[in-house]
Amino acid sequence: MLLQQYKCFGSSAASKIQRNPLFSSLDSRDVSYFKEILGEKNVIEDKERLETANTDWMHKYKGSSKLMLLPKNTQEVSQILQYCDSRRLAVVPQGGNTGLVGGSVPVFDEVIINVGLMNKVLAFDEVSGVLVCEAGCILENLATFLDTKGFIMPLDLGAKGSCHIGGNVSTNAGGLRLIRYGSLHGTVLGLEAVTANGNVLDMLGTLRKDNTGYDLKHLFIGSEGSLGIVTKVSILTQPKLSSVNLAFIACKDYLSCQKLLVEAKRNLGEILSAFEFLDNNSMDLVLNHLDGVRNPVSCSENFYILIETTGSDETNDREKLEAFLLKSLEKGLVSDGVIAQDINQASSFWRIREGITEALQKAGAVYKYDLSLPVEEIYNIVNDLRGKLGDLANVMGYGHLGDGNLHLNISAAEYNDKLLGLIEPYVYEWTSKHRGSISAEHGLGVMKANEIFYSKSPETVALMASIKKLLDPKGILNPYKVLPHSLFSH
Amino acid sequence: MLLQQYKCFGSSAASKIQRNPLFSSLDSRDVSYFKEILGEKNVIEDKERLETANTDWMHKYKGSSKLMLLPKNTQEVSQILQYCDSRRLAVVPQGGNTGLVGGSVPVFDEVIINVGLMNKVLAFDEVSGVLVCEAGCILENLATFLDTKGFIMPLDLGAKGSCHIGGNVSTNAGGLRLIRYGSLHGTVLGLEAVTANGNVLDMLGTLRKDNTGYDLKHLFIGSEGSLGIVTKVSILTQPKLSSVNLAFIACKDYLSCQKLLVEAKRNLGEILSAFEFLDNNSMDLVLNHLDGVRNPVSCSENFYILIETTGSDETNDREKLEAFLLKSLEKGLVSDGVIAQDINQASSFWRIREGITEALQKAGAVYKYDLSLPVEEIYNIVNDLRGKLGDLANVMGYGHLGDGNLHLNISAAEYNDKLLGLIEPYVYEWTSKHRGSISAEHGLGVMKANEIFYSKSPETVALMASIKKLLDPKGILNPYKVLPHSLFSH
Repeated sequence: MLLQQYKCFGSSAASKIQRNPLFSSLDSRDVSYFKEILGEKNVIEDKERLETANTDWMHKYKGSSKLMLLPKNTQEVSQILQYCDSRRLAVVPQGGNTGLVGGSVPVFDEVIINVGLMNKVLAFDEVSGVLVCEAGCILENLATFLDTKGFIMPLDLGAKGSCHIGGNVSTNAGGLRLIRYGSLHGTVLGLEAVTANGNVLDMLGTLRKDNTGYDLKHLFIGSEGSLGIVTKVSILTQPKLSSVNLAFIACKDYLSCQKLLVEAKRNLGEILSAFEFLDNNSMDLVLNHLDGVRNPVSCSENFYILIETTGSDETNDREKLEAFLLKSLEKGLVSDGVIAQDINQASSFWRIREGITEALQKAGAVYKYDLSLPVEEIYNIVNDLRGKLGDLANVMGYGHLGDGNLHLNISAAEYNDKLLGLIEPYVYEWTSKHRGSISAEHGLGVMKANEIFYSKSPETVALMASIKKLLDPKGILNPYKVLPHSLFSH
Repeated sequence: MLLQQYKCFGSSAASKIQRNPLFSSLDSRDVSYFKEILGEKNVIEDKERLETANTDWMHKYKGSSKLMLLPKNTQEVSQILQYCDSRRLAVVPQGGNTGLVGGSVPVFDEVIINVGLMNKVLAFDEVSGVLVCEAGCILENLATFLDTKGFIMPLDLGAKGSCHIGGNVSTNAGGLRLIRYGSLHGTVLGLEAVTANGNVLDMLGTLRKDNTGYDLKHLFIGSEGSLGIVTKVSILTQPKLSSVNLAFIACKDYLSCQKLLVEAKRNLGEILSAFEFLDNNSMDLVLNHLDGVRNPVSCSENFYILIETTGSDETNDREKLEAFLLKSLEKGLVSDGVIAQDINQASSFWRIREGITEALQKAGAVYKYDLSLPVEEIYNIVNDLRGKLGDLANVMGYGHLGDGNLHLNISAAEYNDKLLGLIEPYVYEWTSKHRGSISAEHGLGVMKANEIFYSKSPETVALMASIKKLLDPKGILNPYKVLPHSLFSH
């Protein structure tokens, strides 16, 4: 038997993977069974739709699945998994397919289970702010729904127009509001998940506090669909506060950015809701590749910071931000800064920060790294890598400075192995040496499954593998992702 | 062989437990071995000290352990557990022993492992606010340490003078600041834990964001020492903000309390840091049993609320709270209210709320229930139980209203089975019917291990048991606690 071999475009040479020969291959009886339980129209064999579902957003990872299933409810997800488990058919759970590490597309011929039809809001409690919904709800739709009730989602990210809340939870998505409202491990109050054998775990509590036994929902937050498919989510939303202000600031060096962060935490305190940064290379990229974008400050500087405040007192909050900006100018921490005068101007500021990903796509091939590092180390890796790569590529640093999260991006005309060899494992080793995380918020997916040891101890990874085997003994759920392939030798 | 049988004082008749006959009994060679690795003075056989360590804070649960071990570091904890696991000697991890469900004392003759000597602060980062310390650090000592750095712990509770951070994490302690800073699942960034076989799991990350594999630290947060002993903790602390204000408010009925909460979340928004309530019965108890306490408001009312704000702007924050109080008076939500003029007065307000537990102890026997319920249901259970018990006991309701957490306490002259039979399972059934949790923040311990199904589905509990078996195959870690005894038939 000739084994299929997978090599993803632009990823590490070390990530060559062989298809697990223990997995079955789809046959016509399988397809008939799925049509029986889901109905003809929710069993997708159409080539064009499969092409899209097989390909990730960056066109970097591409699977060869022959089937996508669109369950309408938890019961159908359960039936699908029970069948796949008994047949040993591998599956990949898919939401909005906006992931950046190849986690949401098949590696080989896994059956795609897309929860996009499960998109209903099930309940909203205006006293507690708890929202209960199905996993396939698009983040932006939830935000729109909540807006009418005077609430906001505790997370916000660039992909909001496409990403699903189930995918957000499964990948423990971070985003722009984490500095204020914390991670999904704190804000997700409950969930429902279906494990590999079709078992439905009802952990859909809506309580802020519940200490009755092990809090198993956390196993499904951030495990990238490898332990179960999240089908419903209960999440604590926040009252929409009336006053939102946004400043766009230029700083001459990284040390100033760092000092500004400490001052902002102290002086803006409870109203601080975002502290984002980008470097000059990121700014230039956006200015060059996106239409209608301009630099809000008059000077061109090495670094730019966005500080957002959210509070309940319009006049006071604005005065506070203005005073903070003025004081920072006087101290020399800031070269220039402007506060958005209205919501349109605020959107244009955010467009710069959120548009970097799009600009990178337009600029050519891009190697994306998503690192957590001690704040004082964050920009050192950008400088070191720039020194190493020289003229070979354009190295950019931006991200969620307030959370110690750097998006390190290397833009080149095209993907090539020489360049990759210079970047990896260098970036991972550098991060590990500084006790950072090689994935702050993107997850490991297929891209970094083998690199987990750079951030986690062997004992911990061994326990992860035991838990994977406990919940998914046949390994059918999102195989080849998250955990090192060596742990699942066939 | 005669099986020992345990029946805890004042607890449910259903919680009669038999000692697991598979566990070994301590012999002199065991004691010699422990003296060898820990040194003579950290192996405690002294009757008086064991009496204290065998007895819980409320004198409700009492074990018969013959040995307490005081490890000085992780390595010693590992050696102890490795030995106990190989000998099948059961152990109970103990911190400050301030738990309320019999979780931190032996049920029979389990060896007590108290981490009190492991009490060092290991690191503090003033940029990120991340504190790393050993598990035996007393919460109040950490608060004092942080105060000198201009930071505060994200949790605060009445037992702070005795409880350990390791115990706080192991029980997922809630307390007074949860409404503002969220649960420990959000604020604990990392931990180190030793599993039953002595395996040390280094998950001591200090990063705000880290999506590399399953976030296994959550298994150890709130599992009450039944999956491993937490030895080190990394936690996100918060900048100490300059302006703290506290209002003591009287309300005539529960509906007003509830409306006031919704208004406070909306109008005080980002500065709200506590929203606590007590009923008139609780107030009377405190006034009768604690010295030097007086009612801060002139009128005697049915309900009292404490609203604390924490912010960075002295003048504005106070004006905001005053305006809120005035508006609430005008609307008729509030009968009377007073804002503390200085820190002493604030302490005297807090003394009322935090003194309830102490007053209850002084009043006689007390049955304590710690429930999460939808806010609109919270006081119905107090009224219903009062109707049911009549003159047999004094029923009190107080707690963290802002988090939907009711402390339901029944005070009587002495413990008796008739009264208990009226309370249980009534309280659990009522809670379950309203989709509440039978333990919001206290955990299950030995008191409620068998009651878990009132709040968790059978499938979820079965998975908990599988995970317990995976991490602790011989079941030596804190046996008879958390999970139903029926799942571990000997």
